[in-house]
Amino acid sequence: MTATLADADHVAADEFVASLRAQSQRYHSLHSFHRRMNEGSLSRGQVQGWVANRFYYQANIPRKDAAILSNCPYPQVRRRWIRRIVDHDGASAGEGGIEAWLSLGEAVGLSRAEVTDERHVVPGVRFAVDAYVTFARTRPWVEAVASSLTELFAPDLMAERLAAFERHYPWIDPAGLAYFRARLTQAPRDSEHALEVVTEYCRTPAEQAAAVAALSFKNDVLWSMLDAIDTAYPDRADADR
Amino acid sequence: MTATLADADHVAADEFVASLRAQSQRYHSLHSFHRRMNEGSLSRGQVQGWVANRFYYQANIPRKDAAILSNCPYPQVRRRWIRRIVDHDGASAGEGGIEAWLSLGEAVGLSRAEVTDERHVVPGVRFAVDAYVTFARTRPWVEAVASSLTELFAPDLMAERLAAFERHYPWIDPAGLAYFRARLTQAPRDSEHALEVVTEYCRTPAEQAAAVAALSFKNDVLWSMLDAIDTAYPDRADADR
Repeated sequence: MTATLADADHVAADEFVASLRAQSQRYHSLHSFHRRMNEGSLSRGQVQGWVANRFYYQANIPRKDAAILSNCPYPQVRRRWIRRIVDHDGASAGEGGIEAWLSLGEAVGLSRAEVTDERHVVPGVRFAVDAYVTFARTRPWVEAVASSLTELFAPDLMAERLAAFERHYPWIDPAGLAYFRARLTQAPRDSEHALEVVTEYCRTPAEQAAAVAALSFKNDVLWSMLDAIDTAYPDRADADR
Repeated sequence: MTATLADADHVAADEFVASLRAQSQRYHSLHSFHRRMNEGSLSRGQVQGWVANRFYYQANIPRKDAAILSNCPYPQVRRRWIRRIVDHDGASAGEGGIEAWLSLGEAVGLSRAEVTDERHVVPGVRFAVDAYVTFARTRPWVEAVASSLTELFAPDLMAERLAAFERHYPWIDPAGLAYFRARLTQAPRDSEHALEVVTEYCRTPAEQAAAVAALSFKNDVLWSMLDAIDTAYPDRADADR
């Protein structure tokens, strides 16, 4: 009887993980803006607009992760989750993902000032990112962990993006792409931990459904950001391709 | 004129720091329970009750500090503040302040289970600690930083406590006092940083008044915890002193 229950648990866990992975069908890699980015058809202005707007997301990720830390009562979970904050903020000045994104900004021709003062950030991007941080602050911590699982899908997009940038946008200094290179190894490590946590702490059907819904919500955040960026930086016939 | 303004600023900053330091007059070192602890007049049950209840505070400190991280928009502040979380949670299993407090629990005769399941935590302690975490989550981040400044007053109490425990409570294994020893160096480092942050980010009279009020609130949290503990573990004529 115990064996049967354990088997049923395994089936349920496998189905749960499959439901999470199925959210890749709604990942923003499929958005028209990302497709055009990776096909090499974005103008310099469009690439700049994406980098400047996406900075708002990058700058808020440590605050989202700190909200998860604050809501999580388990030191053993916090002890691993905290690495994400160090990855983004850096262990000391000049290091970390936010800094790497500012270098990307410079590589595409944006000054640090015009990125950090958020002058280019459009309302739809701000609303989507703020919704993500609010989700992490106000929802159960394990749902916020589940929402991070878009990292399961990120490495493929990062690898494709790195190749696309080097091939189609030779005006961007490849040194500026360090952020994407770092994520190639960080994202799998992070998503592996998040998947462990979610499968350990989401056992009931209701908890598992909430985790899948959280990941779906996160897909909406990312997709909505690209909608707003796509609208703000439309294709132009006279674009400096 | 600029020099005069700068001088006025310095005077204001000095007065502000003096107002913060004046809160030492309301620090819980003056509470009857702490006085009796350091005089050696607490029973074994009273010491155990204090250790078990104070654990609830220790366990919530990283969550309070993560709330500050989450609310703070400055990577340079977060990069230093995050050390507090590592200090409490440890870099790996078996390390950190929470673990050291559990060792103190064992040294005074409490099992890890009865400390971590919080069975001894009395309502007044729970309410006070929860109020502190809620304060950090909901008030401006710099006020939450100011509330941490009781650390300015802590080293004296820690030094006095270490001497008192070794002298008056020989039944406590001195190895269990490692938490207090660590705080002798951590608290001055932390309070120095917090004081830098507060003087940098609280410039207007209203901001400075809010910072002093936050520190006063924190004194209330600590004092209220001792009131609740004192009530729950009264002196007894038949106490095993």
